[in-house]
Amino acid sequence: MANFNFFNPISTEMELLEQELSKKLDSRIELLNESAVHLIKAGGKRLRPAFALLSAHFYMDDLTEVIPLAVGLELIHMASLVHDDVIDNSQTRRGTETVKSAWGNRVSIYAGDFIFARALSLIATYERSNVVDVLAEASMKICEGEIIQMMSCYNVKLGLKNYLRRIERKTALLISVSCQLGAMIANAPEQEVRALRNYGYYLGMAFQVTDDILDIIADEQVLGKPTGSDIKQGVITLPTLYALRYSPRREELAQLLASPEACRNETGKIIDIIIDTDGIDYSYYITRHFARKAQKQLAFLPELPVKKNLYNIADFILAREF
Amino acid sequence: MANFNFFNPISTEMELLEQELSKKLDSRIELLNESAVHLIKAGGKRLRPAFALLSAHFYMDDLTEVIPLAVGLELIHMASLVHDDVIDNSQTRRGTETVKSAWGNRVSIYAGDFIFARALSLIATYERSNVVDVLAEASMKICEGEIIQMMSCYNVKLGLKNYLRRIERKTALLISVSCQLGAMIANAPEQEVRALRNYGYYLGMAFQVTDDILDIIADEQVLGKPTGSDIKQGVITLPTLYALRYSPRREELAQLLASPEACRNETGKIIDIIIDTDGIDYSYYITRHFARKAQKQLAFLPELPVKKNLYNIADFILAREF
Repeated sequence: MANFNFFNPISTEMELLEQELSKKLDSRIELLNESAVHLIKAGGKRLRPAFALLSAHFYMDDLTEVIPLAVGLELIHMASLVHDDVIDNSQTRRGTETVKSAWGNRVSIYAGDFIFARALSLIATYERSNVVDVLAEASMKICEGEIIQMMSCYNVKLGLKNYLRRIERKTALLISVSCQLGAMIANAPEQEVRALRNYGYYLGMAFQVTDDILDIIADEQVLGKPTGSDIKQGVITLPTLYALRYSPRREELAQLLASPEACRNETGKIIDIIIDTDGIDYSYYITRHFARKAQKQLAFLPELPVKKNLYNIADFILAREF
Repeated sequence: MANFNFFNPISTEMELLEQELSKKLDSRIELLNESAVHLIKAGGKRLRPAFALLSAHFYMDDLTEVIPLAVGLELIHMASLVHDDVIDNSQTRRGTETVKSAWGNRVSIYAGDFIFARALSLIATYERSNVVDVLAEASMKICEGEIIQMMSCYNVKLGLKNYLRRIERKTALLISVSCQLGAMIANAPEQEVRALRNYGYYLGMAFQVTDDILDIIADEQVLGKPTGSDIKQGVITLPTLYALRYSPRREELAQLLASPEACRNETGKIIDIIIDTDGIDYSYYITRHFARKAQKQLAFLPELPVKKNLYNIADFILAREF
């Protein structure tokens, strides 16, 4: 299992993707180039392109036609990362961020816009307006999700529905759309496009819940960011929601989470309260629930080797030991 | 002349546009709605939609089909205004901006992204990938332009070429694309699409030079913003470029313009130095040059009443008395 290469049928295309990403982010403006190079070097799992390619692979062997879509999807993901990275004033005032140059924010905004427009110009190469439409609708929902998340911070009264809506828009939507568009470009039958779209959706949900668990329990070195960074920013995730309901110290927890100062300065204490409940186990149960739902969608798809890849990606989430 | 209504053949469509703008900016997210309502109420001349409609009107009487494009173009313009409005940290530190809520910046970023994506979903309703492509390419160049402008601030060594490139991307491109796409949607012959695109380009250049003149000489009440706001922000425009070259006090001027503090605090002195040269007259000459070039493009278009409208819009710029 550990040695299974999830992306083995698309390894050539994944290499091509890296080259294309560099090329497409090339601008005559030096400052744009610098941030682009930084973004590409930062790497990433390129999940969205991989899902588009794997989905298309059910219906075509030569995946050349899917490359512009794959590059476009990764660029849209990158553009959203760039905009997320914009420091708001309150953050700088708190001094929790490194100092950027005077126009750091503006560069991030225009660089994000530039990358998004570039993605669009790639997607426009397909003579299919429904491809643009699916992406436009998803982009709007993702923006709405960012605002919902922002407005939900430090609010301990919001429940599971709000959480699921946030992670749907934060992660599940773009992975779902990646699978859907990969299938559409490859002219998959409508029912199978839907199955792949649903597969991506449930897998994306499972991924994000896993991420939210790891943010609380993993080492800083594994995460590449401080443990509890969600808590520090006032983002309330599933294990925390569980603790807010079932912890014997739930009133104390609610008070801590409602205070930006406590979230920043007493993160360890908050984590301890959460870990003392069954919140992590419960969240892992929800992750498995979504991963299994993803796997069930595969029943609607042709019996081809690539199906095993999609199955194993979901299995990997199921098998993860915490 | 003063009584000529530039938009008389499209008055019904311009009303429809206002209704559609309100509808399309509707989101279930209250915070997005608030900023959208604010934007629509702020009004604007709706120049880009008007140019798309007038251009299409050469080739069709029923302009219903052009409405989604018209709305989309205005939304793209609005999205760029929202992103321009993001306060960078240096500005707040100077205290020149009113205080916004803690997440003011983030809301502006996501609201801009949302509006851009909405524009896209409208453009996608046309089954023409080249329409999306033209807009994507223009959007990239506009982003590059914003960054060029940012990097050119307080730099007194840059010349006319840099200035023309900046105003091309800031204003001329989207007006040019509006004319071009209006004609494309209406299935105009290729040569006439090109003529309308060029018309929009030259007219946009003339508009921006005029704006840059007014920023230096007009009353605050006429402008709706402080006189010299470009100078205050370190943006060097055509009259200033002229003065940097020909003013007897050009060395003093260069020193003042290179200093952000002087630009903010000695704006009046800088304006006096510029006005003492022929920089305003020269800039007005350049404006007329572009407006005449715009009018010349009309020779390639059919002899229809709407041509008079496009001609008069350029005439209005020519006749403006300073």
